[in-house]
Amino acid sequence: MKGNVIVGQSGGPTAVINSSLAGVYKTAMERGYTRVYGMRYGIQGFMEEQYIDLSKHIKNELDLELLKRTPSAFLGTCRYKLPEIHEDKAVYERIFELLDKLDISVFIYIGGNDSMDTIRKLSDYALLTGARQKFVGCPKTIDNDLAITDHTPGFGSAAKYIATSTKEIICDAMGFSYKKKNVTIMEIMGRNAGWLTGASALAAGEDCAGPDLIYLPEIAFDVDKFVEKVRSLLEKQDVVVVTLSEGIHNDEGTYICEYTSGSETTDAFGHIQMTGTASYLAQVISQELGCKTRAVELSTLQRSAAHMASRVDVDEAFAVGGACVKAADEGDSGVMVVIERVSDDPYQSTTGVYDVHRIANAEKVVPREWINKEGDGVTEEFLDYVRPLIQGHYNPMMVDGLPRHLSMKVQNYDWAE
Amino acid sequence: MKGNVIVGQSGGPTAVINSSLAGVYKTAMERGYTRVYGMRYGIQGFMEEQYIDLSKHIKNELDLELLKRTPSAFLGTCRYKLPEIHEDKAVYERIFELLDKLDISVFIYIGGNDSMDTIRKLSDYALLTGARQKFVGCPKTIDNDLAITDHTPGFGSAAKYIATSTKEIICDAMGFSYKKKNVTIMEIMGRNAGWLTGASALAAGEDCAGPDLIYLPEIAFDVDKFVEKVRSLLEKQDVVVVTLSEGIHNDEGTYICEYTSGSETTDAFGHIQMTGTASYLAQVISQELGCKTRAVELSTLQRSAAHMASRVDVDEAFAVGGACVKAADEGDSGVMVVIERVSDDPYQSTTGVYDVHRIANAEKVVPREWINKEGDGVTEEFLDYVRPLIQGHYNPMMVDGLPRHLSMKVQNYDWAE
Repeated sequence: MKGNVIVGQSGGPTAVINSSLAGVYKTAMERGYTRVYGMRYGIQGFMEEQYIDLSKHIKNELDLELLKRTPSAFLGTCRYKLPEIHEDKAVYERIFELLDKLDISVFIYIGGNDSMDTIRKLSDYALLTGARQKFVGCPKTIDNDLAITDHTPGFGSAAKYIATSTKEIICDAMGFSYKKKNVTIMEIMGRNAGWLTGASALAAGEDCAGPDLIYLPEIAFDVDKFVEKVRSLLEKQDVVVVTLSEGIHNDEGTYICEYTSGSETTDAFGHIQMTGTASYLAQVISQELGCKTRAVELSTLQRSAAHMASRVDVDEAFAVGGACVKAADEGDSGVMVVIERVSDDPYQSTTGVYDVHRIANAEKVVPREWINKEGDGVTEEFLDYVRPLIQGHYNPMMVDGLPRHLSMKVQNYDWAE
Repeated sequence: MKGNVIVGQSGGPTAVINSSLAGVYKTAMERGYTRVYGMRYGIQGFMEEQYIDLSKHIKNELDLELLKRTPSAFLGTCRYKLPEIHEDKAVYERIFELLDKLDISVFIYIGGNDSMDTIRKLSDYALLTGARQKFVGCPKTIDNDLAITDHTPGFGSAAKYIATSTKEIICDAMGFSYKKKNVTIMEIMGRNAGWLTGASALAAGEDCAGPDLIYLPEIAFDVDKFVEKVRSLLEKQDVVVVTLSEGIHNDEGTYICEYTSGSETTDAFGHIQMTGTASYLAQVISQELGCKTRAVELSTLQRSAAHMASRVDVDEAFAVGGACVKAADEGDSGVMVVIERVSDDPYQSTTGVYDVHRIANAEKVVPREWINKEGDGVTEEFLDYVRPLIQGHYNPMMVDGLPRHLSMKVQNYDWAE
């Protein structure tokens, strides 16, 4: 008897985080594990005995396919930081007691940097105490900021949605350009890493000029220089479209969004909740240059738009989920599964495993040489890296005109009298 | 010799406004007109001799299909109000001189209320002066606020995008609900008519609870009552999702967005540019109830998301464009083509023509009986009306991972060094 598998989801969701969950489930069943449990709301819910038997929800192959196309965390997610082992041993004793109670032999955690920190601590504790469970991290983040792995599942689909929306927003802006200059500023997720914002450059091609200016958080942002850039662009063209990361900041590290709001909140990891950069800068441009401006914040749409998921991304997320079970089944623990790029053209990838201690809490940002000299665009090398990841389309399963999702429970609605 | 056709686009764009343009082009060619001209930037550009020969841009059937899938106004659009004839006759003399110069016998204008006003004035002037040109209006607006026609091309696709995004945003919000109540407020276009906001209710179904509260501009909005509603919902559930129209206002007619901004601008028709309602109310909820809030503004995405266009809508927009040419060819002038619903189940529609004098400047709002008693939701009748309009999907033509559009010119980009 191999015992059971438990899997959790943590951190910000993506369009394909459930495809990894589907991969975990399928491989675990195929490899002869008895049950696959899902933690509700990650380790936080699990510690309070919130979990489900996944086979009750994935009843057939169609459900599995629906799950692959369902955005956000099917199991629910959390932002919960485990204490260091020496700080609070009781937390760990509690978790391992529950794992034993459920006869868990494999623990998979789908998440980003903070989640890999959880895998690191749990696998360390297992080593210290001789516990039998294997702990494997499954990478996930639209931000693409995990070290070692070539890229993260979730990034390709968000990049595809962003590039598509950028094209459509540019179409929209171009339509209104007669004798009326207009500036559109798009705010894209990314606190410290500009991968997603850079992906807006994919919009450029035979049918679209792409954004005129692209600002990544890797480069200090200067509001005055920005205004001058826009002013000089408006001398030769009527429409200016700018994409920028929510996390752009000045050379002293002050976020541009802090110029305006004043009401920041922080999460359990000390991250500032960001918003308002685009609308602040749109106001500045409007005041300084007197032209029509529009701020577009892609908001949570960019991480939950499963209807625009990339096939490469959905398939890789699924494969990575399966590879986590395989790794644990073959004895690995304290590792994260990584994606290795085998070839650029034609694009091919495979999976590997990597020591989670070397990954946790290290952020991968866009290398300086993939950003242009001026700091307001990305290079061909950047585009060559991203382009394979947005290829292919997973048709949503349309029911009554809308994409169908797999759902655990539906809150009742009573507004229709 | 039948002479030539000229077609223009006006007002806010939609995902399918170019499908109507494609319909005009195809039917005009088939009916033996020599040339189809396109006004650049509507009547405003045309008066300054900005026009193109469409056959130079639509070179084959593939181009025509691409045009049907291209969002925003291919020809460029404007918000330009013609003076009354008695106010400035010279403007009309100028326009008709140009029409004669180009040997125009049919003038088609694709637009909303304001554009039908243009058709009315031009056809009146032709009657007064005995000019030979026929003037036909082609309805278009995501707002669905045109009178007489059952619905307007553009509405169905925007409704489909909004319902899809609402589902995805609800998924996202549900994932984060563990011991942390959260309220999401989605702001949807619609100044005086709540058709689009009501369409968010389509998200509700077997896999999704749909929005908890839906506020249309047809009903006066009370901020205090709203806060109490949300408070009481949060007593029984962790996640509250609210959709509301940008145009909601209190019972004295003051827009909620005016509570905050102070920097409104108005267009040529005196419309206020609206934004900020959702973020204002999110701030109020956060202060009053102390929970996590998020404001999502769908912005121009909702009118330009051709990648989520409804097949019914694209096909009807195409048919309506063709019907405009047919009407003019058969002698109609001063009319708008309307969509008539022949049957609800199975859904069938046809086109008719209607005197533009009875349409211009009249706004069709959501009837009171299609809004629930409380004024915070829509009824089944509303849903039965909208549901057929979001059916079916037009697959985008994907090139290198992104939807391909037909484009007239591409501004050069130089950020890639």
